[in-house]
Amino acid sequence: MEDVVIRPLEKVELRNPVLIEGLPGVGNVGKLAADYLRDQLPTKPLATIFSKFFPPQVYVSEEGIIRLVSNDLSYWRSPRPGGRDLLVLGGDYQGISPEGQYEITERVLEFCAKLGVREVFTLAGFAQGKVVETPRVLGAATSPARVEAMKKHGVVFSRNDPGGGLIGASGLFLGLGRLYQMEGVCLMGETSGYFVDPRSAEAVLKVLVSTLSLDIDFTALEAKAQEIDRIAHKVQEAEQRTSEGLPSGPSAPREDLGYIG
Amino acid sequence: MEDVVIRPLEKVELRNPVLIEGLPGVGNVGKLAADYLRDQLPTKPLATIFSKFFPPQVYVSEEGIIRLVSNDLSYWRSPRPGGRDLLVLGGDYQGISPEGQYEITERVLEFCAKLGVREVFTLAGFAQGKVVETPRVLGAATSPARVEAMKKHGVVFSRNDPGGGLIGASGLFLGLGRLYQMEGVCLMGETSGYFVDPRSAEAVLKVLVSTLSLDIDFTALEAKAQEIDRIAHKVQEAEQRTSEGLPSGPSAPREDLGYIG
Amino acid sequence: MEDVVIRPLEKVELRNPVLIEGLPGVGNVGKLAADYLRDQLPTKPLATIFSKFFPPQVYVSEEGIIRLVSNDLSYWRSPRPGGRDLLVLGGDYQGISPEGQYEITERVLEFCAKLGVREVFTLAGFAQGKVVETPRVLGAATSPARVEAMKKHGVVFSRNDPGGGLIGASGLFLGLGRLYQMEGVCLMGETSGYFVDPRSAEAVLKVLVSTLSLDIDFTALEAKAQEIDRIAHKVQEAEQRTSEGLPSGPSAPREDLGYIG
Amino acid sequence: MEDVVIRPLEKVELRNPVLIEGLPGVGNVGKLAADYLRDQLPTKPLATIFSKFFPPQVYVSEEGIIRLVSNDLSYWRSPRPGGRDLLVLGGDYQGISPEGQYEITERVLEFCAKLGVREVFTLAGFAQGKVVETPRVLGAATSPARVEAMKKHGVVFSRNDPGGGLIGASGLFLGLGRLYQMEGVCLMGETSGYFVDPRSAEAVLKVLVSTLSLDIDFTALEAKAQEIDRIAHKVQEAEQRTSEGLPSGPSAPREDLGYIG
Repeated sequence: MEDVVIRPLEKVELRNPVLIEGLPGVGNVGKLAADYLRDQLPTKPLATIFSKFFPPQVYVSEEGIIRLVSNDLSYWRSPRPGGRDLLVLGGDYQGISPEGQYEITERVLEFCAKLGVREVFTLAGFAQGKVVETPRVLGAATSPARVEAMKKHGVVFSRNDPGGGLIGASGLFLGLGRLYQMEGVCLMGETSGYFVDPRSAEAVLKVLVSTLSLDIDFTALEAKAQEIDRIAHKVQEAEQRTSEGLPSGPSAPREDLGYIG
Repeated sequence: MEDVVIRPLEKVELRNPVLIEGLPGVGNVGKLAADYLRDQLPTKPLATIFSKFFPPQVYVSEEGIIRLVSNDLSYWRSPRPGGRDLLVLGGDYQGISPEGQYEITERVLEFCAKLGVREVFTLAGFAQGKVVETPRVLGAATSPARVEAMKKHGVVFSRNDPGGGLIGASGLFLGLGRLYQMEGVCLMGETSGYFVDPRSAEAVLKVLVSTLSLDIDFTALEAKAQEIDRIAHKVQEAEQRTSEGLPSGPSAPREDLGYIG
Repeated sequence: MEDVVIRPLEKVELRNPVLIEGLPGVGNVGKLAADYLRDQLPTKPLATIFSKFFPPQVYVSEEGIIRLVSNDLSYWRSPRPGGRDLLVLGGDYQGISPEGQYEITERVLEFCAKLGVREVFTLAGFAQGKVVETPRVLGAATSPARVEAMKKHGVVFSRNDPGGGLIGASGLFLGLGRLYQMEGVCLMGETSGYFVDPRSAEAVLKVLVSTLSLDIDFTALEAKAQEIDRIAHKVQEAEQRTSEGLPSGPSAPREDLGYIG
Repeated sequence: MEDVVIRPLEKVELRNPVLIEGLPGVGNVGKLAADYLRDQLPTKPLATIFSKFFPPQVYVSEEGIIRLVSNDLSYWRSPRPGGRDLLVLGGDYQGISPEGQYEITERVLEFCAKLGVREVFTLAGFAQGKVVETPRVLGAATSPARVEAMKKHGVVFSRNDPGGGLIGASGLFLGLGRLYQMEGVCLMGETSGYFVDPRSAEAVLKVLVSTLSLDIDFTALEAKAQEIDRIAHKVQEAEQRTSEGLPSGPSAPREDLGYIG
């Protein structure tokens, strides 16, 4: 068996396509963003990626149908004259070993290079270890020109963050991408790291939409974000009562809870 | 050395063969079922599978004879006109690394595809974390048609189980099997997960026998199941006495112990 | 780099050679035995085996000279007319991963098969978890005929030992050896598992010498064994005093210490 | 993807070049020394080395520019007539698995062999587990002649150190280098193992400079060493006060602190 198997579902020609990567990771921010983008554009399936570097696992749907874990590429044709097409990479897992991460990333990049990809956006979460009310979008890029360009879309390039660099697919698609003459940007939504974070995904996606002049309805993602906010709020409230020895109930003080979001 | 070595012992032509997989796993349900089927039909050895993805281990028989750990394929020719032949995969271990699981499964599927296999049944246990008096057989399949077909044989397709999907050979033979144009079903016998469980294996095998119109004598498996029941019963009784501070002996209350089976 | 590099130092033709494997393991029994055999015959170096499945390590001699960790094959020509030549495999490490164990064993077997090897003796320790005064030599073999033959040389074939089989090179050289049409025997010297055990190595070697009609002087190995006995004795004595709260000194009771050997 | 990718930045012819390896390790001594040498000579970049045996990681500069983790070779042309050119190997990581260590080392050696390298110096730290005031430079070499030669430059060849041999790149470049007909020396600066240790790097580099008749200004490295000394001093002082229950302040006794260096 090949280490990485890319099974194309369709043969396409794309116009100057941009690759957007969003795989599971911190706060699931990248995956949430990529999945939402895929649903909203919407994109069409292009290829399925299997690998022995994923877990030996199948998922079972509510109807009892099995599906081997995978990554998947889908595409979207821009309706605008001269517009750029998109490729979106999502999936169940990143490679579960360092070697696997390299192998999978390299094979996907090779496949995308043949489709004409020269630009990559990777979407990720950046764990702050504390609740983040209004997540900023931190950036890292392959060139100073791109850093300047992204600042105009509100991306923050912080001298100290991310201090230790980026580990995993979002870094590797850019780092290895350079060996394929690709340029790109990593967009990292701030997140606590404790929750799946649709609000951070929304922040990341808004930067992407602005940069690529896309038109996306954020209603559903905003609804998800508010639901998570509500849950986080309740958890926070319960913890605070417990730690202060207060009775649980409507009379408990709520003043300092606003920072949850 | 090849990563996976399949050594054929015989060259056979099979009629529309069905592959049945039962390797060690939860409650050893799959292995117990496959081994029992192999003994009862009985099957003939077809091929031995060695791999560097198994442990570097030999077993020693009571007579002092060594045997390298392996998986093995055996076959059975249906005596009925137009009947389908069977291939049974059993063995000592599943691959001990994720990559190994993929490699071994893929190589066995490739070998079976050449023998004409287009349908796979995988046998496994499903850990409920508590004693199960009358194990149900849960299912997962590669198509809605198969889901419906298996329901007629008493298989339960539960909306929530298995929630996290299937990990290991029983899932992978179906998931990777689809890349070989194979369809199939995973039959999971409910089991506590604490014991080797011949009763669960019996439940799984009864579904299989019904589906494939086989004729198997269950006396020996039932005997094994009753022996395990007795042991489990005693363990349970002893634990209950201990936790209730009761003296051990025939006068201890037995009323609530019936649920063990 | 090849996974396993075998660098021949000489080109030899051997007469019906027997391979003897003794690598580090339980009580270092196999390695002690093989190294002693190599020194006493004495053998000549034939090939050095390097592998990326060994640790990335060099040893430094007392003179400051480095040497990459390796296994090594040496040979001995029987001086008797019609006698069988020997190949002795020793070294610093077994492969450090399961895959590595398989790969190294397979490559060495392939090399030895080309030299005409059809018979293998593997030397190992068998941990009893307690001090063993007079170590027996347990056996496992590739055929009933060999089991019977070895019994005549005092080898014990126990119904229950080794219950879980053999893990590592001593089992694998026999298990994989069968794929190269080699037959063989594993000789396991009983040992506590707590000490490097030259006495157990001596027991194993005496069986080997008897089986292959070799002529070896055991004086140096016996001296080593007695030195370890003395150390073990002292450790035992000290522990006993501590646990009994006795003062340390010549007046402490020694009656029950005889069992150390 | 190749396991190890060496991307040359320039094509050069070098005169009898010497390879100097200094990668991260104990006290970061080797890396500090190699990096300092590279900056002071100064060297020119020759090749970048990527590998799936490094972590799947990119670094982000203060300006927000990403860079895939790598090793790198740079070169220096000796200005002296008949002088020997140098190759310096530095980088972010050693290979993160044993196999990776072997693969990367072997590929770099192969690359360097083509450039004419026949001699290697590897730079490393040797952990003493205690503060070392005046670090000695311990050595290990590929031949007795080299041992004698290095003694003249103050290198200590100790009968017992390093007792367990060398693990990692500094040993492997010499051990595998012999398979490429390279000779060489490992220079190990004594260090506590608790700090990044520029003073130990300085000691190592002074031996190298003496051996290769280089001309290096040590001012900047000495400044770094003094800064680390100051920090270590403060930490030591604070710990001593704590353990002696003394008040922190200028009146605390300082007599025994001199040994920090």
